[in-house]
Amino acid sequence: MIRHIVLLTWTDDATDEQKAAVAKHLGELPAVIPQLRRYDLGSDLGLAAAGNSDFAIVAEFDSVADYEVYRDHPQHHAVINEHIVPIKAGRAAIQFEF
Amino acid sequence: MIRHIVLLTWTDDATDEQKAAVAKHLGELPAVIPQLRRYDLGSDLGLAAAGNSDFAIVAEFDSVADYEVYRDHPQHHAVINEHIVPIKAGRAAIQFEF
Repeated sequence: MIRHIVLLTWTDDATDEQKAAVAKHLGELPAVIPQLRRYDLGSDLGLAAAGNSDFAIVAEFDSVADYEVYRDHPQHHAVINEHIVPIKAGRAAIQFEF
Repeated sequence: MIRHIVLLTWTDDATDEQKAAVAKHLGELPAVIPQLRRYDLGSDLGLAAAGNSDFAIVAEFDSVADYEVYRDHPQHHAVINEHIVPIKAGRAAIQFEF
């Protein structure tokens, strides 16, 4: 299987409402993208003194082709453009087999 | 449960042998840290044109206390200091509930 991980850091002026909207709208994607075998979203617990990312997206797929359906899905792009980009300060990502 | 994710980027001059040593020595930790409920390691598949991290560590624990056992374990620190630090160019991390 393929695991796709994105770790996001928010801008200092991002509001709780904006952060909550990201989780809400991403959380709607499994209903429209059945290729998502598993989809975990989570905010940093604050255990590290500094340097952690703020929000994690962990998506699992049966194949690279299924990952690409998610990557390119218009509703996914809408969430990125409308909710993530306006408060994004940093991003790390990877896709790997597990 | 708690998921701990680290995404690492390697230096340009990191060798395949050095990268393989990271995976090998991290892979020995579940045998000595039973608090690790699940431990997935993986190298980037190269699907993104640019900007991806190179290596993922995804660890799952029953509790924050169990995560802290892993975080502070001397054999874990030995792998970090001997194998990861010498080839580390970047790091993103998060801990979240799932």
